[in-house]
Amino acid sequence: MSPTPQWVRDLTSSEPQGSNLLERERNKSNISVETLSKFLFTTEALTRREDVLKILTAEKIFNKSQNYFDGRVDRFKTALARAKRLRQLQVKHDWTRDQLMDASYLISEPGPYALHATMFITTLRDQGTSEQHKLFLEPAQNYKYIGCYAQTELGHGSNVRGLETMAKWNPEDQTFTLHTPHLTSSKWWIGSLGRTANYAVVMAQLIIGKKSFGPHPFVCQIRDLVTHEPLEGIHVGDIGPKFGYNTMDNGFLLFNKVKIPHINMLAKYSRVDPISNKYERPASASLIYGTLTWVRSTIVLESGGVLARGVTIALRYCAVRCQFQDRDSPSDSLGENQVLNYTMVQYRLLPLLAATFALHFTGKTMMKLYNDNQKKLKGMATSAKDEGRGAGPEQTHSGSDLLADLHATSCGLKALGSTVAAEGLEVARRACGGHGYSSFAGIGAWYADYLPTTTWEGDNYMLTQQVARYLLKTARAVLSGSPTDNDTSRIFKTFLEKRDTGAAHDILVSDSDIVAAFAWRTAFLTFEALKHRDIEKKSWNSLLVDFWRLSTAHSQYLVVKNFYNALQSDKTVEELDSTTLGVLNKIFRLYALDTLEKEASEFFSSAAVTIRQIQLTKTKAVMQLLEDIRPHAIRLTDAWQFSDWQLDSSLGRKDGKAYEDLFYRASELNPLNGLTVDPYPNSEVIVKRDETSEFKSKL
Amino acid sequence: MSPTPQWVRDLTSSEPQGSNLLERERNKSNISVETLSKFLFTTEALTRREDVLKILTAEKIFNKSQNYFDGRVDRFKTALARAKRLRQLQVKHDWTRDQLMDASYLISEPGPYALHATMFITTLRDQGTSEQHKLFLEPAQNYKYIGCYAQTELGHGSNVRGLETMAKWNPEDQTFTLHTPHLTSSKWWIGSLGRTANYAVVMAQLIIGKKSFGPHPFVCQIRDLVTHEPLEGIHVGDIGPKFGYNTMDNGFLLFNKVKIPHINMLAKYSRVDPISNKYERPASASLIYGTLTWVRSTIVLESGGVLARGVTIALRYCAVRCQFQDRDSPSDSLGENQVLNYTMVQYRLLPLLAATFALHFTGKTMMKLYNDNQKKLKGMATSAKDEGRGAGPEQTHSGSDLLADLHATSCGLKALGSTVAAEGLEVARRACGGHGYSSFAGIGAWYADYLPTTTWEGDNYMLTQQVARYLLKTARAVLSGSPTDNDTSRIFKTFLEKRDTGAAHDILVSDSDIVAAFAWRTAFLTFEALKHRDIEKKSWNSLLVDFWRLSTAHSQYLVVKNFYNALQSDKTVEELDSTTLGVLNKIFRLYALDTLEKEASEFFSSAAVTIRQIQLTKTKAVMQLLEDIRPHAIRLTDAWQFSDWQLDSSLGRKDGKAYEDLFYRASELNPLNGLTVDPYPNSEVIVKRDETSEFKSKL
Repeated sequence: MSPTPQWVRDLTSSEPQGSNLLERERNKSNISVETLSKFLFTTEALTRREDVLKILTAEKIFNKSQNYFDGRVDRFKTALARAKRLRQLQVKHDWTRDQLMDASYLISEPGPYALHATMFITTLRDQGTSEQHKLFLEPAQNYKYIGCYAQTELGHGSNVRGLETMAKWNPEDQTFTLHTPHLTSSKWWIGSLGRTANYAVVMAQLIIGKKSFGPHPFVCQIRDLVTHEPLEGIHVGDIGPKFGYNTMDNGFLLFNKVKIPHINMLAKYSRVDPISNKYERPASASLIYGTLTWVRSTIVLESGGVLARGVTIALRYCAVRCQFQDRDSPSDSLGENQVLNYTMVQYRLLPLLAATFALHFTGKTMMKLYNDNQKKLKGMATSAKDEGRGAGPEQTHSGSDLLADLHATSCGLKALGSTVAAEGLEVARRACGGHGYSSFAGIGAWYADYLPTTTWEGDNYMLTQQVARYLLKTARAVLSGSPTDNDTSRIFKTFLEKRDTGAAHDILVSDSDIVAAFAWRTAFLTFEALKHRDIEKKSWNSLLVDFWRLSTAHSQYLVVKNFYNALQSDKTVEELDSTTLGVLNKIFRLYALDTLEKEASEFFSSAAVTIRQIQLTKTKAVMQLLEDIRPHAIRLTDAWQFSDWQLDSSLGRKDGKAYEDLFYRASELNPLNGLTVDPYPNSEVIVKRDETSEFKSKL
Repeated sequence: MSPTPQWVRDLTSSEPQGSNLLERERNKSNISVETLSKFLFTTEALTRREDVLKILTAEKIFNKSQNYFDGRVDRFKTALARAKRLRQLQVKHDWTRDQLMDASYLISEPGPYALHATMFITTLRDQGTSEQHKLFLEPAQNYKYIGCYAQTELGHGSNVRGLETMAKWNPEDQTFTLHTPHLTSSKWWIGSLGRTANYAVVMAQLIIGKKSFGPHPFVCQIRDLVTHEPLEGIHVGDIGPKFGYNTMDNGFLLFNKVKIPHINMLAKYSRVDPISNKYERPASASLIYGTLTWVRSTIVLESGGVLARGVTIALRYCAVRCQFQDRDSPSDSLGENQVLNYTMVQYRLLPLLAATFALHFTGKTMMKLYNDNQKKLKGMATSAKDEGRGAGPEQTHSGSDLLADLHATSCGLKALGSTVAAEGLEVARRACGGHGYSSFAGIGAWYADYLPTTTWEGDNYMLTQQVARYLLKTARAVLSGSPTDNDTSRIFKTFLEKRDTGAAHDILVSDSDIVAAFAWRTAFLTFEALKHRDIEKKSWNSLLVDFWRLSTAHSQYLVVKNFYNALQSDKTVEELDSTTLGVLNKIFRLYALDTLEKEASEFFSSAAVTIRQIQLTKTKAVMQLLEDIRPHAIRLTDAWQFSDWQLDSSLGRKDGKAYEDLFYRASELNPLNGLTVDPYPNSEVIVKRDETSEFKSKL
């Protein structure tokens, strides 16, 4: 690689400098970044994150400079080395779970220990007996066993009931035989399995005699603990490169009649009695149900921050990038215009900025709801046990009602939140123009790594059926006069009361009317769907598109409501100065009105608002909000407190040196420039390969 | 890499087999695939493509099996080797331009000769004098010089006027000095420049004395023709990895006062007189204008096929993939349901299938329009020259009117077509569920490589201003009573005549009324925008979002109109059997009504249709069309005639063996499986590296 010559090193960017532009941006706004950050994350969390950052940046293995250059094999090797070092640091500094999460958040790449530390250990802990804890959980916690969670198969993802891997009970020697009957039964997509794990929890159809009892979890060693080669009868490997997530070794796994002992079936909730050879029934499924709800709630909680990374990068770069003069300005005016001044760019990015906050507050509410309900459920379980009876007078508040509501909410918000975040990241990347395509932009890889979130833990389209089912059920209860006393029932009752007279939602003036208009739309769509299903007797399949629309509408209502409530709370008014709160209120209106305008057709056909109101929203209100929020854009991104190290983005640098950083990475770090080629058609490709520079660039 | 054991090789997929499912699909429909293919592409083109395919597949270098595994450096090396072989084959078989294009189409990856063969040679040819042709074009055509086209800079993309690279005229020795004054003036993103090119056409600000004459093209040698090292005063290299397009060496280029002779400024349209040191004015800009229009027309023409690849893969896989039973079916029914039977999947994919045809017919019309206009313009130029005068009686048909209409049409359709294709590919990928994330799906890389099309040759948002400008101008001409006689003026006149009484478009019954409703919406939005700009005197910047909406609306009208006209033509009715034509008519309705429903808010607020009609479109008409088209889905994708070799997709295999192919690639080809790692935290990563298997997998 030819070194960058001195005359190039002496060059500076042409005026205006990115650093001055960003400084000017920050001076334009009087939002208190520090106050807002503390309000969003708490001082404690911010300090904790900063401490972890210091430790990580001091470690050579976490140097990110080759991340964008390395191929799959090298990326995986580095990711595993990082996972190991992270574990060492965790032990050394006695990190809490929060600190470890901070470290992952800052490193920002999936690692090969991820499934061990989460799904493998959690499953052993939650579904194992104390004997099994000793046998499997303890070595797992000490990283003697490195595990994964093998559920999905080549031919079966969403439909867990349809899994084909078998675990046949052998009464004669009290063992199970794990077997892969078909190619399509191969375990597939299993994180950490491809090269790393030596143990797996395998979900397999339990078979006793000739009867199948559905999928159950079995612990199985898959690789030798010393040679690390696969055990006899096991074929295991990495499934190959992916659109993103290439630091993870997602794997496949097949069994050729592999015997495991009775103790390897996780037996806390169900088991095979080795004496009678009978299956013993599982306890209530509600706890497992609860785990999935927790995972989805976490996705909702993270979605705002995920999107905020891309939005931060794009907004900063659009404030640095100048292109064309304003068409209506005198031609001898002050040079080129910041791209962020164009309304077309504001219209693409500022509603996304609003969405980051909307999702953040929704995620926090969702998590609180989950924790509150867990407490209530525990209380109920205890009292029911104590009094030797099921739920009595509080029947309408029963545990299953609570769970059903929480389940539907988490499904709908997971689908909406991850879709908004993923698609928003691509909008942000594209708003960066040509340089958005460079890996150094820092959005593309982040987007690709996040994208699977729209599919896993319940495909975002599939999940909408759960929401619709719940809303239909609630609507039926309201109609039959025996509703649960919750918000969903209330908005349905309000709708039914006013349906004939109509509702005048003054969305252009009143924030609470905006929330009411979203509620109205949900109710309208629910009763429409109910009519199709219950009266017109339409098939479930023919209504899937309606259900998807309904779920989206309802989830948007929840986000708007949660954002609104967060800004109304006493705590908010107390902690934030009036300027910052005033801007957040505009951010709320922008999120809500922009959503309303994009979904206009449902708002007018449900008569939630008038056509005139939508026209005014579109042409006046949204455009005015963009103008009002524009000066605060950069400070609002600063409030997310991303460090440059975390973003790893030329375009999103906090100091605005986007072009300098792009140039540095291309000219100094890029290993392809170590290759001198012969360009003529009738010759070999390579003339010279500068291994030193390639090696140097690896450091 | 441990070999796949025999017991795994003996496994088959569980029932139903993908191959049987696809066979059943093909038996369900009586569309004639062959007739439709010939109608779409002509027999001649299909045969030509097949012949080229045979030649390519016989060449080892074009083996695609490692494409998804290789890192950046290897991918580039292979791409260059392929480019060289392609050039050899072109010479050997004396390929026409069409045959070479077929080969690129089948290979489907950007190659390092791409910019040489197109922009470099075209610019030399079109903008060079005959002396310059001898000096530069001839060695370029013989691949003695390998060139690129260096326009974009680190700090300037869209705004060509703002380029900073300078070419200063030196009267004393009749040379130009090329110079890079700032870091941001570095040429950037230049295809084929990073490692390959030894020559460049450089767009630089021509400076004579102290005056700048704007950007002009200069030919400059940049690398030694023997050592391939950069010449003195030149810093050049590859800009680094990107979201896609990684087989191309997009490069940077800086000059430290590099002198080039007078002859190196391409002088067909403008030159510096070396005696008087005066700048001689360029001829009319219309020819350059024409080149950009041609490039955009090509993008429109290709967009249908680009999208069709993803749609073909997704539809085939959704017919092979079975998941869950139908909720309303008896539980002991025939096993799991094909994913394609779910209306939610149909709703996502079948309108995209319709869009592939809509874009195809639009692209063909666009190209015809371009060619017709080129002929007319040539005729006009000749007759004007002959008669020694400008356009006389045909003033309303003048060359500039024709060009303006063509220019606006190509801008709007380029923006719409490439957006629909790019975003549609991502929808298609996501419709493949989990396996859509695997590189072996064959959509992700194709999407990433295509994506820049939405930004280059005019950013899709920027372009909409051109369309709006043209529509406003046309509307003003209509209002002032002196319109050009073309379709745009006609739809505006119709709108003005009926505006007060309203128009009853019977979209649910009449196809021509659908077209009229789209025209009505364009006209309505144009006169709204005109009111904002001319009467309310709103700033251009404040109207950019309105302009974008207007351009999108107009371009959708053009697509709907072109598709409609294509199906009405005598040739179509003659060549297609009634069944196929009947299905194509439904495809037309699906494209149009689905678009109308998604843009509902503009259709009702313009009173193009009623709210009731939109409701019926949404809940009845579109759903019925999905059901009607569903049985023909696979045959319709077959009509695109993609070979498996071209698609390089496990999921999109024509024979339905999706799972077998995924498994083969993971288990037999994946080099990561040659790596045995130590999984424990306190150890090195690598235990064993099977170089043989890695080498083997490279074959």
